[in-house]
Amino acid sequence: MNIPYRIQLDEEQIPTQWYNIRADMPEQPDPCLNPATGLPVTLEDLTPVFCEELAKQELDATTRYIDIPGPVREYYKMFRPSPLIRAYNLEKALGTPAKIYYKFEGNNTSGSHKLNSAAAQVYYAKEQGLTSLTTETGAGQWGTALSMAAAFFDMDLTVYMVRGSAEQKPYRRAVIETFGADIIPSPSKTTEVGRAILKEHPNTSGSLGCAISEAVEKAVSTPNCRYVLGSVLNQVLLHQSIIGIESKAAMDSIDEYPDIIIGCAGGGSNLGGLISTYMQDSLKGKSDTRFIAVEPASCPSLTRGRYAYDYCDTGKITPLERMYTLGSQFMPSADHAGGLRYHGMSPILSKLYHDGYMEAVSVQQTKVFEAAVMFAKHETILAAPESAHAIRTAIDEALLCKKTGEEKTILFGLTGTGYFDMQAYSSYLAGGMTDYIPSDAELEAGFCHLPNVELMRSASKV
Amino acid sequence: MNIPYRIQLDEEQIPTQWYNIRADMPEQPDPCLNPATGLPVTLEDLTPVFCEELAKQELDATTRYIDIPGPVREYYKMFRPSPLIRAYNLEKALGTPAKIYYKFEGNNTSGSHKLNSAAAQVYYAKEQGLTSLTTETGAGQWGTALSMAAAFFDMDLTVYMVRGSAEQKPYRRAVIETFGADIIPSPSKTTEVGRAILKEHPNTSGSLGCAISEAVEKAVSTPNCRYVLGSVLNQVLLHQSIIGIESKAAMDSIDEYPDIIIGCAGGGSNLGGLISTYMQDSLKGKSDTRFIAVEPASCPSLTRGRYAYDYCDTGKITPLERMYTLGSQFMPSADHAGGLRYHGMSPILSKLYHDGYMEAVSVQQTKVFEAAVMFAKHETILAAPESAHAIRTAIDEALLCKKTGEEKTILFGLTGTGYFDMQAYSSYLAGGMTDYIPSDAELEAGFCHLPNVELMRSASKV
Repeated sequence: MNIPYRIQLDEEQIPTQWYNIRADMPEQPDPCLNPATGLPVTLEDLTPVFCEELAKQELDATTRYIDIPGPVREYYKMFRPSPLIRAYNLEKALGTPAKIYYKFEGNNTSGSHKLNSAAAQVYYAKEQGLTSLTTETGAGQWGTALSMAAAFFDMDLTVYMVRGSAEQKPYRRAVIETFGADIIPSPSKTTEVGRAILKEHPNTSGSLGCAISEAVEKAVSTPNCRYVLGSVLNQVLLHQSIIGIESKAAMDSIDEYPDIIIGCAGGGSNLGGLISTYMQDSLKGKSDTRFIAVEPASCPSLTRGRYAYDYCDTGKITPLERMYTLGSQFMPSADHAGGLRYHGMSPILSKLYHDGYMEAVSVQQTKVFEAAVMFAKHETILAAPESAHAIRTAIDEALLCKKTGEEKTILFGLTGTGYFDMQAYSSYLAGGMTDYIPSDAELEAGFCHLPNVELMRSASKV
Repeated sequence: MNIPYRIQLDEEQIPTQWYNIRADMPEQPDPCLNPATGLPVTLEDLTPVFCEELAKQELDATTRYIDIPGPVREYYKMFRPSPLIRAYNLEKALGTPAKIYYKFEGNNTSGSHKLNSAAAQVYYAKEQGLTSLTTETGAGQWGTALSMAAAFFDMDLTVYMVRGSAEQKPYRRAVIETFGADIIPSPSKTTEVGRAILKEHPNTSGSLGCAISEAVEKAVSTPNCRYVLGSVLNQVLLHQSIIGIESKAAMDSIDEYPDIIIGCAGGGSNLGGLISTYMQDSLKGKSDTRFIAVEPASCPSLTRGRYAYDYCDTGKITPLERMYTLGSQFMPSADHAGGLRYHGMSPILSKLYHDGYMEAVSVQQTKVFEAAVMFAKHETILAAPESAHAIRTAIDEALLCKKTGEEKTILFGLTGTGYFDMQAYSSYLAGGMTDYIPSDAELEAGFCHLPNVELMRSASKV
C-alpha cells in the first residue's frame, strides 16, 4: 500500500461523538472532593464555577459516547480533521526501520489542539446564557484557543496569563487581544488570591496554579460568569478524544496500528485525547500498545510526584483531585515549555499510570530543543516546545529500533507550533539554555503542602 | 451539491507540471535588458547570477508546461495540496449573496506560498553542484521559506533582510536562524552597494530593492554561489502556478468557476500563481473572469506607477525589466506589509495589466487591518498583513454583491499567516496605525530616476 505523506480524512469523517474513557476503565479515578467537607463534589458544588453541561460531563463516568453539538462540529470544520502525517523524512534522517506517524494539531491559529475543547466549552456557556468567561493560560495556546472560540460565539473573556509567559511572549498576548479577549498577567492585584501570592513571592514569574486561582476567584465573583479550564479535567479529555478517534480512523484507512503512542503531558489534555480509543482497545485486552507520557525533567509530576489528593491551584480554592502531583505550592523553574509547567496531572491519566496501563518518562529541555531543530529541518514543522517533548521520545524510540532492528510503528502527538516560542529557540541556538532538575529536597518541600483529607473530613464534621 | 468547508485534494493531485503563462500570452512582455548594453539579456548574461536551470526558465516564453522535478514534488507533499476554503462564516457575517472561496497557502512553517518556489530553486542549485545561495527578504516569508528548503537540501544560505523588518520581527529572524541560515540586516556594511546606500541614507529602514542589490553583489563575489529571488521573476511565477492549478482542480471538483479572482500584489508571485490557469482560460476567450491585483496605497506601483524599463534593485546592478514601477530609488514608508513594499511589479503581470487583462486597486492599511481582524474572528485564520490586502478587496466585492444582489463567486489568495506581524496588529488595535499615501511630487521624484534605455544603447555602441 502506498501511504501518502499526509493522511487526510474528509470533512464527513469528523467524529459525531466524543469518547468518554471512564466508561471503559476497570477502576474509576478517585472522586473529586469538596475541600470544605472532604466529600465527593456534587453537581451543585460545581455549577457555581463551571457551566452546567460541563459540570455534568465532569461527573459522568458511565456514558461511553457523548454527541458533539452541531454548532461545535460546524466550528471544527474550519480546522478538522487534522492531518495524520507519516514522517518519511525524519525516518530517513534517523535511518530507522521504525515507521513514525504524528497527528498534527497545530494547523489552526491557536497553534494547538486546545481549540477542540475551547469551542465546546464556549458553546455550552453560550447555550446556558452566560455572558462572560474567565480562564488561565500558561504558554498561551489555551488562551488563544479560547479567545478564538469566544470571538466566534460572541462571549466576553478574561485570560489570566502566567506572568513569565506573558513577558516572554508579547506577540502571543497580541493574538489573544486581536480576538478581543482581556489579558491580565498573573499573579495580579485584581484578585485576593493574586495579591496574597504577590505578597509572599513578589518576584514570582507565576504558574498555572496561581493563574487558575485568580481566574476561579474572578469567575465566582462576577455575575453570569463561569470559569473554564483547558486541561486536567475529565471534560477536557472528553473533548480531546477527537484527536484519538481521528488518528485511529486515519491509521485504520492505511491498515496501521501503533505499537507505541507518545504524547507530551502537562495537565494531560493532549495525551488523554490522543490515546483515547487506542487505550479503549488496550483496556479491553485487544492490543498491547505501549503508551508513553513525556514530561519535562523540571516539572516531573508523573515520574517523581506523589499519587495523592491535592488542590488544582496554588491558592487552594479549587476542589481536590487525586492525581500525581508535586504539591500545589511547587513553583516550577522558568522552563520554556510553559504549557507543561503544572504541578498536577489529569486524574484519569494519573489513574491509568498508577494502574500500570501507561508509562512515563522525563526529558531535559536542551535535548528537547535538539530534537525540535532536527525535526524542523527534515519535516518542515517548527514544533512548540511542549510538543517537542514528544518528538524527543519518538526519536529516542526510533533510534532504539535502529539498534534492535525492530520495525515498530510509532505514533506521537504533535500538539502545536512554536511560532511564539522563538525566544526559547534563540536561547537554545545561542547555547544559552540550561537544564534544571529539582532536587529531592525541593520535591519533599512541595509534598509537605499536600492536604490531609482525613483531617478535612473530621474537621467538617465538628 | 454539499460543498465542504475545506476542499482538500489528495496527494496524487499535486500537479506534476508547472504552467508557463507566457506560452499563451497574445503579446509577450518586453525582454529583460542587460544594463551594460541596453540589449536583451542572454543565458550567458544571467548564469553568473542565477543558477542555470532557473536562468533557462526565466527566458523560456514558449514551453507551456514544465515538469516539476521528482524531489521537489516529494517536498511539496509535506504541505501540498493546500486547502481551498469556502468562507461560509465570513459570508454569513457579511450577509452577502456572494460565494467566497480562498486558497490558503499559509499552512506551512514559512507561513506563505513562498515555499513553492523556494523548494524548486534550492533543488536546481543543488543539482548544479552549487554550495551556497544568497537572497533578500522583506516581511521574512521568503527568507523563511528559502531557509527551510536550504536546510532540507543541505545548502548554505545568506539572507539579507530589510532592516525595518528585521527589527520589527526578531522572532521571524529566529525562525530563519533555526533552519540554519545566516541573516544580515540590510543595508549592511558587508557589501559595496550597502555601504554606499548607508552613506547616503544612514537612517534608512531599508527596502527590498536595497536588499536585492546586496544579495546579488554577495552572490557574484562568492565562489560557487548564486542569487535567488522570491518574486517578480518569470521563473517564480512559473513555480507559483501550482497555486492556480490546484485552485482550479479543487473548484472544478465542486463545479465552481470564479467570477472574480483577487490577490495581493507586491512583486506579483502569489497573484501570478493564483491566476495562472484561470488567466489561460481568459486569454483564450473561454471566460470573462475579472482579475484584481490589490496593492498598498503606500506603494502603488500598478495604480500610480509608470510602465517603463527600470532596475529591479536600488543599487542599479540588476538587469532592467519593463514593468510598472515607482522608480528603483523610491523608498516606501515603513508600512507594516513589508512583503508589498517593492517599487516594481512582475513583468508578466505588468504586461497583462497594461494590455487590459487585469485590474488593480490600492487600499489603505487601516482598512486592511480592519478586514483582517474581522476575518480572524469569523474564519479563525490570522492573516499576514500582505494577504489581508486581498481580504479587504474580497470583502468589498462581497459587500457590493450584497447591494446589487448578485450571487458572484469570488476566489482570493490567502497567501499567508500573520504570527510574526503581531506588532502591526497591536499597533492597529491600539489605534496607533496611520495611513500613508505618497504625494504626486514624491512619485515624480521617483520617476526621475528611471533609466534611459536609448541612451544606454547608444553609449554602449560608442
